[in-house]
Amino acid sequence: MIGGGPGSFIGDIHAKAAQLDGGVSLVAGAFSSSREKSMERGRQLCLNPNRVYGSLEEMIERELRLPIDERIDFATIATPNHLHYPAARALLNAGFHVVCDKPMTLNLAEARSLQRLVRSKPKLVFALTHNYTGYPMVKLARDLARQKHLGKILKVVVQYPQGWLIEPIEKKGSKQAQWRTDPKRAGKAGSMGDIGTHAANLVEYITCLRITELCADLGAVIPGRKLDDDGNCLLRFNNGARGVLIASQIAAGELNGLRIRIYGEKGHFYWRQETPETLDFCACDGCITTYRRGTDAIPRLSAAAAAATRLPFGHPEGFYEAFATLYRNVAETIRARKAGKEPSPIHLDFPTVDDGMRGMEFIETVVESNRRQRWIAWNK
Amino acid sequence: MIGGGPGSFIGDIHAKAAQLDGGVSLVAGAFSSSREKSMERGRQLCLNPNRVYGSLEEMIERELRLPIDERIDFATIATPNHLHYPAARALLNAGFHVVCDKPMTLNLAEARSLQRLVRSKPKLVFALTHNYTGYPMVKLARDLARQKHLGKILKVVVQYPQGWLIEPIEKKGSKQAQWRTDPKRAGKAGSMGDIGTHAANLVEYITCLRITELCADLGAVIPGRKLDDDGNCLLRFNNGARGVLIASQIAAGELNGLRIRIYGEKGHFYWRQETPETLDFCACDGCITTYRRGTDAIPRLSAAAAAATRLPFGHPEGFYEAFATLYRNVAETIRARKAGKEPSPIHLDFPTVDDGMRGMEFIETVVESNRRQRWIAWNK
Amino acid sequence: MIGGGPGSFIGDIHAKAAQLDGGVSLVAGAFSSSREKSMERGRQLCLNPNRVYGSLEEMIERELRLPIDERIDFATIATPNHLHYPAARALLNAGFHVVCDKPMTLNLAEARSLQRLVRSKPKLVFALTHNYTGYPMVKLARDLARQKHLGKILKVVVQYPQGWLIEPIEKKGSKQAQWRTDPKRAGKAGSMGDIGTHAANLVEYITCLRITELCADLGAVIPGRKLDDDGNCLLRFNNGARGVLIASQIAAGELNGLRIRIYGEKGHFYWRQETPETLDFCACDGCITTYRRGTDAIPRLSAAAAAATRLPFGHPEGFYEAFATLYRNVAETIRARKAGKEPSPIHLDFPTVDDGMRGMEFIETVVESNRRQRWIAWNK
Amino acid sequence: MIGGGPGSFIGDIHAKAAQLDGGVSLVAGAFSSSREKSMERGRQLCLNPNRVYGSLEEMIERELRLPIDERIDFATIATPNHLHYPAARALLNAGFHVVCDKPMTLNLAEARSLQRLVRSKPKLVFALTHNYTGYPMVKLARDLARQKHLGKILKVVVQYPQGWLIEPIEKKGSKQAQWRTDPKRAGKAGSMGDIGTHAANLVEYITCLRITELCADLGAVIPGRKLDDDGNCLLRFNNGARGVLIASQIAAGELNGLRIRIYGEKGHFYWRQETPETLDFCACDGCITTYRRGTDAIPRLSAAAAAATRLPFGHPEGFYEAFATLYRNVAETIRARKAGKEPSPIHLDFPTVDDGMRGMEFIETVVESNRRQRWIAWNK
Repeated sequence: MIGGGPGSFIGDIHAKAAQLDGGVSLVAGAFSSSREKSMERGRQLCLNPNRVYGSLEEMIERELRLPIDERIDFATIATPNHLHYPAARALLNAGFHVVCDKPMTLNLAEARSLQRLVRSKPKLVFALTHNYTGYPMVKLARDLARQKHLGKILKVVVQYPQGWLIEPIEKKGSKQAQWRTDPKRAGKAGSMGDIGTHAANLVEYITCLRITELCADLGAVIPGRKLDDDGNCLLRFNNGARGVLIASQIAAGELNGLRIRIYGEKGHFYWRQETPETLDFCACDGCITTYRRGTDAIPRLSAAAAAATRLPFGHPEGFYEAFATLYRNVAETIRARKAGKEPSPIHLDFPTVDDGMRGMEFIETVVESNRRQRWIAWNK
Repeated sequence: MIGGGPGSFIGDIHAKAAQLDGGVSLVAGAFSSSREKSMERGRQLCLNPNRVYGSLEEMIERELRLPIDERIDFATIATPNHLHYPAARALLNAGFHVVCDKPMTLNLAEARSLQRLVRSKPKLVFALTHNYTGYPMVKLARDLARQKHLGKILKVVVQYPQGWLIEPIEKKGSKQAQWRTDPKRAGKAGSMGDIGTHAANLVEYITCLRITELCADLGAVIPGRKLDDDGNCLLRFNNGARGVLIASQIAAGELNGLRIRIYGEKGHFYWRQETPETLDFCACDGCITTYRRGTDAIPRLSAAAAAATRLPFGHPEGFYEAFATLYRNVAETIRARKAGKEPSPIHLDFPTVDDGMRGMEFIETVVESNRRQRWIAWNK
Repeated sequence: MIGGGPGSFIGDIHAKAAQLDGGVSLVAGAFSSSREKSMERGRQLCLNPNRVYGSLEEMIERELRLPIDERIDFATIATPNHLHYPAARALLNAGFHVVCDKPMTLNLAEARSLQRLVRSKPKLVFALTHNYTGYPMVKLARDLARQKHLGKILKVVVQYPQGWLIEPIEKKGSKQAQWRTDPKRAGKAGSMGDIGTHAANLVEYITCLRITELCADLGAVIPGRKLDDDGNCLLRFNNGARGVLIASQIAAGELNGLRIRIYGEKGHFYWRQETPETLDFCACDGCITTYRRGTDAIPRLSAAAAAATRLPFGHPEGFYEAFATLYRNVAETIRARKAGKEPSPIHLDFPTVDDGMRGMEFIETVVESNRRQRWIAWNK
Repeated sequence: MIGGGPGSFIGDIHAKAAQLDGGVSLVAGAFSSSREKSMERGRQLCLNPNRVYGSLEEMIERELRLPIDERIDFATIATPNHLHYPAARALLNAGFHVVCDKPMTLNLAEARSLQRLVRSKPKLVFALTHNYTGYPMVKLARDLARQKHLGKILKVVVQYPQGWLIEPIEKKGSKQAQWRTDPKRAGKAGSMGDIGTHAANLVEYITCLRITELCADLGAVIPGRKLDDDGNCLLRFNNGARGVLIASQIAAGELNGLRIRIYGEKGHFYWRQETPETLDFCACDGCITTYRRGTDAIPRLSAAAAAATRLPFGHPEGFYEAFATLYRNVAETIRARKAGKEPSPIHLDFPTVDDGMRGMEFIETVVESNRRQRWIAWNK
């Protein structure tokens, strides 16, 4: 693991999620740019101190010296955004598979360069942790949508409100808030980069549609912020559907309120990340069907949703499990590749460099649309 | 009553709601442009046949011939939109108070003319049936917002999705759908006129803010429609807040899903018309307080919410009661005026010609913004 | 109307509900044993003062002197329980149809006598206001259960918790609380009589089963109370199913929380009075279907549920409407009888003297079971 | 680990939960009475084959031969019930700490014997996996109840309905169902032993009250069952409060529906295992406060709830985390004891042999009450 030092929020999640199913072990890390902090984190994790490194470069160099069956297979990049690109490039060039946090890079140029690099190394896996696609009920929605359960999709409303930046906590010592509100480390966008990209990815994942135009209105609501902490976006899709995307980190009273409604000719889906075990389908005749994870009804509707389930129905799964499914899929894909086998379609279901590229384009387009206060075509 | 003939949806609601509290009696009506249908409706309502008329003109003429204490005090206009203005004008000029359905008129010119007329007759009441403002929990939200419960308001998301026009039922005999999709009878906007105006009014009612700019994206999703049946709108408010307004009548699986979140510095409100008896306040510390209509907590927070309550807590009230509160307020205001008294502030709480004017401007601005596909300032 | 004087809770509900649909008019009343208060209530209701009476006897005598097409058709008894029986007897003997509040009488002996009287007058309607059976979604549950939607019914859990008696408000001037906690006016049971009878009736109405044995544990939790203010009951049904019935008026924080789960071989129903517009069916395969009042799905499932609907879907109905449906059914039955026609099955769907008898037996059995602290068979 | 062989439901949960926080490693096991299956499970778990054993006896013998700092510290017993007691006895006698699944033993005699044994070895930890007490919101409820948030507790309604035994799946190859419906392996009670004990434990954990009397009605609803698959119970508590406990495994359409309402003088709590992240407090004034795990409000209310939190608010935790908290507390207690320190109160918060004893008494009392169809005093 790269990053995820003491006090890191997402680093610990990566570690627990990756290891939940027992197919992955965290054995080495460069957890911090401070060797001392890196060692401290290594001790917390009970790692062999010889495999806790003071820098990425050291890690790569020393891991490569290990016999091939002892060295790490892949590395997770859980640093602030500006370090994603150099780390990913170095790791890929050294022959390691990569799991990278989102957004993929600091800017579009880096993203393009990384996309080229990944494409040039077809044997290496590059995965992006759009972890919300790991929820079984999200996979169910995607599969039902593919099976034309909704008919043609006409409208999408996706909201991702959080409230944790309603106070200027970046001025009060929150490291999380500091880098996420700093353009040098976070990139061009704040909320839209951090969580808007998740929302856009979720929409495209479930619907298999592409956003083709958007009109954004962003604000830095808390005085002194250089990046957006709140934004609303009108969307248009490649099939003509319309949509709205809302991302905010000053939505006081919200926790991690990602939720989505997808309207088609025959009804609509409703899913909420905070109660992720159910998916509602509201039909034209007024009946609502609530699907519940792990129940008998699921396997006949979605193999992916069934495969993403660990616990029996009624025993709640949550965030770790969704994240772990992403890791499991990556690990199984790497395992199949190492064994010279074709990975199963179930396991190939994780976000790739192309999703990362779309995320970076989304940020670029949103920021540009807001700057010009008008509709912008994406990617034509 | 003008309009509301056999088979009318809203006419029957007006009749039941107006009479629920016993302070209003429906005694006369011109329910249809067909004398026969008007008489039929009169019989349904057990009215004196001498006071069921074949036209508005006849009604005015004959009511004026009655002794002043026998004639009607006010008339409700529950016709399609294009008839609102001529009816309202004739009634006001004849000296009757008016309750008019929304949107107020067919177009902005009529609205301006009507506004002038109403202003010239300060003794007459002109009320518009933005009935959703009649819900006690909406009044509670407004009063709490005024008491700075939210702090400064930063963001608003209001949605009004319906699904009843997902099929082209205007081609299959639905009279409701026919006039509401016909620009000659409905005006410039479809969904945005019919329900978007309710949403805009609700936002302004609760927040006491004014929308000052908007950027709309409207669609006539079902082939052959001349008016929007779906639309999304970015908003800006006079205090700098941002917002989103969504109105759709092709949101399959939705019923009458008006819902609103209002975000401030200290938390946010959430209210849903389909479960109107509760208001959620989600605070910055993560606790949600759910207020419930009729409970002991309400009177100390909002006199208006308390006064809009008929049944004890836990005995659900709904749509009729909210509508009835609007009628009660209008009736009590007329009664006070007749008695030469000042109406109480509680009773003056109903939408006026100025709200109607804002609704017409909203329609105008939304349609113009959509036509030009850009932000439009709304006449400051 | 008999009873329902100034300040009465249920009297005003009867008046509004009866008249909601326009087929019933309140024209006469003996609202209080005080002539003055009766007149005051008559004025509130804008009644002809000649038809506001100082006593039931006076009302009967003077109404009978009116021409038959001017006199009242039926009378509603909305007094405390101890007055139900004498009022019902006098009215029936005078030839008037009767709508009576529940529980039907003060004790079982009165109930038996009344049942005999009603059976001896087959042309007269006697209806009991178990109003919760008036909700459309309750009727849907009943019809689906009859259609074997659940398969054999195996278990029932019905709860009716209220919290309004958590304080000894009968000592602080609450008239409602005074008579309801007074054995001389309320009868043998407190909570079990006031709301337990509703719960028992609801179970039997939906399931078409009969309770055959029960084991009750009642308490007078608030010191000084002579009647139960809290109780729990084990149930057995005539098909072998088991159940639980809970009724409490000291369940602090509850409003009017009647809710019921009915488990069968194929799944279970869940309905809550406080959000009465939906009925959930939770199937064995884990999917939940939520039925919503007024939607397209309803008429093909239940004619009774469809007929009990006034407003379009998504426009919430509540307590008044359910009550009004009971009155509409009674009024249409009386109308049919007057016209010498057979009432439609839809309109015959209201609680009768036999339901009232079961309610009184329920009270008797519950109290006896509690006294003896053991299971008691209920009249096989 | 003892038990939890291939295909075991609860064994895998123990393994994942124990290791989630990184403070526990599964290093050895006797997973099955078949050496082959035990080895298979060991391979799945990537264990050292030298530490996968064919029997408990072998495991104890060989582990004891290892140097003290290499051998296991504690063992988890995840077998069917009839094996709990011999395994626990052997392990404790060999000096190992024990984590045991519930119900604690096959019968009361074993339980008494085990209780004596545990009391005779004060240095050894014996923990029982009443895992539902591991949820943060359960701990919050307990702490708020202790702080008199409810006032005196007056009434408890706890339900634990499941539907997975609605079909006779024990006849169709379900191993889970086979042993759980077999008195020789499950003990005297079916549903009441498997899940009724959880419900009783949860009530006593949150309220700090003791059940002193009960009246049970149990059924073996599915033909051919020897043990109860459904049951209802009236309760009385040592402070005079009344209650109801419902446990069923034939409640079709339910998943794992443990839910509890605890009524006091000032309001009531409501918690549902299927949406475990929130706790509702419904106050006498009608307001509901919804507490949410991980939010800023929690630490000032409950140190135990705050300490049981891993993920930030809005990132759902579930069943594994609650289970893991129990393991963390056990592990930290063992760690403190090994280090000669006093464990912190936070870590001593896990169910002990005394809770196990109460569970066995509960089973005994419920079965006896049902057999005699009457109230039985518990433990006087």
